Amino acid sequence: MSQFSVNILGCGSAAPTAFHNPSAQAIEYRGQLMLVDCGEGAQAMLRRMRLKFSRLSHVFISHLHGDHFFGLPGLLSTLDLQEKGGTVTIHCFQAGLEVLRKTMAIFCPDPGFEIIYNPIRNADEIIMETDALTVETVRLSHRVPCVGFVFREKAKPRHINGEMVRFHNVPVYKLNAIKAGADFVKPDGSIVPNERLTTPPDPSMSYAYLSDTAYNPALAEKVRGVSLLYHEATYDDSFDRLAGKYGHSTARQAAMTAKQAEVKELIIGHFSKRYNGNEELLLQQAREVFPDTILAREGLTIDLI
Amino acid sequence: MSQFSVNILGCGSAAPTAFHNPSAQAIEYRGQLMLVDCGEGAQAMLRRMRLKFSRLSHVFISHLHGDHFFGLPGLLSTLDLQEKGGTVTIHCFQAGLEVLRKTMAIFCPDPGFEIIYNPIRNADEIIMETDALTVETVRLSHRVPCVGFVFREKAKPRHINGEMVRFHNVPVYKLNAIKAGADFVKPDGSIVPNERLTTPPDPSMSYAYLSDTAYNPALAEKVRGVSLLYHEATYDDSFDRLAGKYGHSTARQAAMTAKQAEVKELIIGHFSKRYNGNEELLLQQAREVFPDTILAREGLTIDLI
Repeated sequence: MSQFSVNILGCGSAAPTAFHNPSAQAIEYRGQLMLVDCGEGAQAMLRRMRLKFSRLSHVFISHLHGDHFFGLPGLLSTLDLQEKGGTVTIHCFQAGLEVLRKTMAIFCPDPGFEIIYNPIRNADEIIMETDALTVETVRLSHRVPCVGFVFREKAKPRHINGEMVRFHNVPVYKLNAIKAGADFVKPDGSIVPNERLTTPPDPSMSYAYLSDTAYNPALAEKVRGVSLLYHEATYDDSFDRLAGKYGHSTARQAAMTAKQAEVKELIIGHFSKRYNGNEELLLQQAREVFPDTILAREGLTIDLI
Repeated sequence: MSQFSVNILGCGSAAPTAFHNPSAQAIEYRGQLMLVDCGEGAQAMLRRMRLKFSRLSHVFISHLHGDHFFGLPGLLSTLDLQEKGGTVTIHCFQAGLEVLRKTMAIFCPDPGFEIIYNPIRNADEIIMETDALTVETVRLSHRVPCVGFVFREKAKPRHINGEMVRFHNVPVYKLNAIKAGADFVKPDGSIVPNERLTTPPDPSMSYAYLSDTAYNPALAEKVRGVSLLYHEATYDDSFDRLAGKYGHSTARQAAMTAKQAEVKELIIGHFSKRYNGNEELLLQQAREVFPDTILAREGLTIDLI
């Protein structure tokens, strides 16, 4: 099983259609499950993709449009039926948290797990941090306050070179410090530099979710070099005016941000219903700018590690 | 096209599963669309069944459990995107209306149609009346306040016997009164009894929706003789204790109510997920008591006229 993966639960815009669910993604990271946006139908897709709800620890809601939120009360109620324990932290703008609180108070007044309500701001800042991961908000350009989320693994420990460690008689209790980069001071006071005892760590992976937003060249700096960028691509080139007007992007604009940011891979989604589930034109226009682009689709899993 | 039909959008209990959506039905009556309960996924099923949202005039919510309600904010938001005009009346317990008001205020603050919030009571009473139809609540026996809904067509006009009307020289302006049952008084003062001028009207149809409820023999009187009864049937016989405990019914109990009430036809639904979409056992146990029983399933349409 991958330790860091992105699962697409919904990649349509606005309302559910016969082709797409509204926005929702599940991030798996070292056994925990996190949701990014939660449009209607997210829980049905989690079930279809066999992603166990009970591991859900965090939900990140980008903005207060229903197609990014309306699946949340039902999902939390189902978690209660399943007798999940522990906590679920909801990261969301304050007004959405108030709606959720009120909804839960009436429809699910005594859930078997604790809901932690974490109000977020329309700003660029770290909103969650664990030993291994940070999640930061990125301010987007939409009709209402809206943020993207960037998941960054912290630097990982270096790999011990067993042969060299044995050769220099490094005691076991020193190994964690050496994995973290320390040199080894021998009993005679001489120093073995870290690079002789270790090999470089596995790369730290990162995922950026940018939806919904008009094209904004300043965004590239915020997601520079991420392993995978999800960028909304509601329209093709011919609707670029509409995109600007409604605070959305074309596929080409998504690819421009990916190129400027020098990301490894781009996945586009949040497709307008006008494409009837056939988004090849969007893919083609994005690839003209940034070849390493793929289309989101419900059920798709992308492993980052 | 039928003038009065019941469309099953969801007939599972609790959470959506791979086999069933949570509770939702669409009643079509003479060109208008009414919803009874609105679990998550209702709008997707409306689209799949090609039932036009824009005709939606009334929504009736039986009780404040999420599997009967959580599809409503999304459905109303989609109606707004579709630029529906006019009004939609939401008949629901007060606390649910408050949740909906708050949700709409944040997520859909300026819909293109008027939402009328009609608080209902846990009582047996008429809550809606048009020239042709009444809708009444029926108090059920669930864990929280819960009502069923009975849709009754009013008596229809009698059919004019054209030959007799011409024979007696009945003037056109008298015809509506005669359709309504009046006798005809001739210019010479003599009376032609209505039965000589008309034939009986088409029968008035009726539909009762009873979900969620424990078995309650008193219910039969409330739905006596309806054309179609939907009764929840969460469990088979072997779970009758569980049914009582959670305020639900077995299929056999649903059939007992249908038999006692002498309804024309019974449709059972609100199936527990333990049946994995295979509810033949429930059907069999219901038919042992009331043979004219069918199973609900998503996508099913039953024409009453």
